[in-house]
Amino acid sequence: MIQRAVVLSTGDEITTGKVVDSNSNYLADKLNEIGVDLVAVLTVGDVPERLEWAWRAAMQMGDVVISTGGIGPTADDLTTETIARITGKPLWRHEPSVDHMRRLFSAMGRAMPENNIKQALFPESAEVIPNPLGTAPGFRMAVLQANHTAHLVVMPGVPREMKPMFENEVIPWIRLNRGSDKIFATRIFQTFGISESALDEAVAGLIRPEEARVGFRASFPQISLKVQVEDVPGSAESRLEELSERVRGRIGNFIYGEGDCTMEEVVGQLMTEKGLTLAVSESCTGGLIGHRLTNVPGSSRYFKGDFVTYSNDLKHDVLGVSETTLKEHGAVSEQCVLEMAAGARERTAVDVAIATSGVAGPDGGTPQHPVGTVCLALVANGVSVSRRYQMRGTRDWIKLLTSQVALDWLRRYALGLPLGESVLFRR
Amino acid sequence: MIQRAVVLSTGDEITTGKVVDSNSNYLADKLNEIGVDLVAVLTVGDVPERLEWAWRAAMQMGDVVISTGGIGPTADDLTTETIARITGKPLWRHEPSVDHMRRLFSAMGRAMPENNIKQALFPESAEVIPNPLGTAPGFRMAVLQANHTAHLVVMPGVPREMKPMFENEVIPWIRLNRGSDKIFATRIFQTFGISESALDEAVAGLIRPEEARVGFRASFPQISLKVQVEDVPGSAESRLEELSERVRGRIGNFIYGEGDCTMEEVVGQLMTEKGLTLAVSESCTGGLIGHRLTNVPGSSRYFKGDFVTYSNDLKHDVLGVSETTLKEHGAVSEQCVLEMAAGARERTAVDVAIATSGVAGPDGGTPQHPVGTVCLALVANGVSVSRRYQMRGTRDWIKLLTSQVALDWLRRYALGLPLGESVLFRR
Repeated sequence: MIQRAVVLSTGDEITTGKVVDSNSNYLADKLNEIGVDLVAVLTVGDVPERLEWAWRAAMQMGDVVISTGGIGPTADDLTTETIARITGKPLWRHEPSVDHMRRLFSAMGRAMPENNIKQALFPESAEVIPNPLGTAPGFRMAVLQANHTAHLVVMPGVPREMKPMFENEVIPWIRLNRGSDKIFATRIFQTFGISESALDEAVAGLIRPEEARVGFRASFPQISLKVQVEDVPGSAESRLEELSERVRGRIGNFIYGEGDCTMEEVVGQLMTEKGLTLAVSESCTGGLIGHRLTNVPGSSRYFKGDFVTYSNDLKHDVLGVSETTLKEHGAVSEQCVLEMAAGARERTAVDVAIATSGVAGPDGGTPQHPVGTVCLALVANGVSVSRRYQMRGTRDWIKLLTSQVALDWLRRYALGLPLGESVLFRR
Repeated sequence: MIQRAVVLSTGDEITTGKVVDSNSNYLADKLNEIGVDLVAVLTVGDVPERLEWAWRAAMQMGDVVISTGGIGPTADDLTTETIARITGKPLWRHEPSVDHMRRLFSAMGRAMPENNIKQALFPESAEVIPNPLGTAPGFRMAVLQANHTAHLVVMPGVPREMKPMFENEVIPWIRLNRGSDKIFATRIFQTFGISESALDEAVAGLIRPEEARVGFRASFPQISLKVQVEDVPGSAESRLEELSERVRGRIGNFIYGEGDCTMEEVVGQLMTEKGLTLAVSESCTGGLIGHRLTNVPGSSRYFKGDFVTYSNDLKHDVLGVSETTLKEHGAVSEQCVLEMAAGARERTAVDVAIATSGVAGPDGGTPQHPVGTVCLALVANGVSVSRRYQMRGTRDWIKLLTSQVALDWLRRYALGLPLGESVLFRR
């Protein structure tokens, strides 16, 4: 029965601070999602006695020990031989893995270096886990402890090889061996425009603890809400669907997507679906909105261009903002962003244009326009909306938050929702 | 003598994957910098027996145990009482810390909740480390083990409180207690345009292992090179300066800065120093160059604007790229980016303008212009340079790398260095 896990993260590059151990966070999140209790994460460098200590401690504490790294071809990759030494199992050579490696190298037009053979050696009784994306296969084996069986799961450290291996080969196996006929059904709601505490309150009154586990994850500027139901197959999914409907009914206006998706992907999908084209004009965000929109493959279908008019001269010369507006209202004004958006829309003949102007700081604030003052506008056929916000935070946060509000306006416009309903800026 | 460290990272938010444990990476890097061997990082949730296990294991292995988190005011903050229980030391109340907390709360116009008093309780014999930025002070205490003394260092988990505490209070204390009269003198060179392996080779022949420790850290798209000399004060600094001169002599053209600095900051500083103004026109990078330039406070002094002309129509209408060029050479051509840069410069009356156009992928590649084909141009008074690159990688990497090359061109232009000398794209 697999209920408690220990994650083992090995490598000098982690203990000397060269790389951030993102694998452990990924594994912690996934284990939490399938209801496995992560007892500890143990991180040690490529030093034989430290590896040995960590493996022994991990096997004592965990029903499953999940290890990443240390199975490369070089001399400092010691994971497999450490396990062989501790468990007293001899190493044997797995010919299909050797063949797989030779094929990978020959596809790159190179001969396989002999030290790669090491990656096809496994402790006796281990079950090889294939690695379609790299040379190092993983493996799994059971080791008897005083009071329980410890299942060892060894995976490569490269995230793009480790993650699919974990999701496709390890998670299903853990689910099967959790000692429960129940499964976890999970849904993630991506929200924007509502604070974590407001979200917490809204959901607390909606879902009882015995109905589902509810979790939040704030990744500025968005907050995701995770609803997880543990039940027998069939019931779990249907209860999740029923709870999801409740969530949508309560906070639907703040949910921009379900599952793993970014705001710019949602905007891109909506623009494509509705056949809309768009243009941007930016001042304080400096190009960030265009950058985010063009992170989405295929964005050229709807995104035509972005005028980053940082100077007032360009706002006038390129977008046609009137000198009167700049003189009487200033560049950080609803009037100015309205003219910027209208100018951008006219120059590009698109359906919808948005504009930003503000004081990102840390300098440039005035009593009338303190740091964090941001104006937004959206102009489309028959639509002309502007709003002034007061944000807080560092320069990069203000830029990022402004870009998120602008993208959310595009989403809301495409869906026919009221714009600027965000409660983030209310006092 | 403090030579081996163990880092203890505690909190359910880490073991459930809600937050990435960035503190451990920060501490690993800093410990490495001052020559302390990090034996292990132990991460456990807020569970008494797991905390107890981790503290006992850490004290056995480390001369110093550095802990972050678990000293907040709530019931699941268990670090201090765990240490008191293990060491058998009673808790006492540190009045100056209570006063400090009361002052912090009254400055916010709020009364201090009574559970905050908990943060002013410390095990007997502990030395309090003040926390000017938050309510939770840290502390330090020595605990005798079978064969050594373990020094415990307890700090808050909030990075903006922990980091200054570590740098101002803990590092100097570790340096004093390393049992050596030697110090570490360190310099970091930020490079671009040369691969990690080429950098490794260049430096391997230049600095002997007994002269200094040399380390690399690749943070795409730049690579930093760290040179660290261990010697008595005076000698360490002068030897570091001599080695730095050697490094500059060998790879100077690829070094864009020394110390912590980004390429956009360096460009901003050069533009300011030389009194230059600049404008950008982007296609495949979609606004990223403007975004990066405007991440630097005060960038409005030199950055005037950015024309993200994603569609061919806009390249023609806004920047004046000729229809013949678009028809005969296409948008991804040196001719096109030259006209884009010239158009942007003319429209904005700046000193220097750059332009990008390329195929960022994953779709849109052709045999003639495969994914990763990128053209860059720089136009200034009497200067008109373009180049075609073949990059590899995902859409976001190609965008980021292109923006880095463009910024590097601006840097090189401002310094009068040859443009486009990068060896990254050579086959």
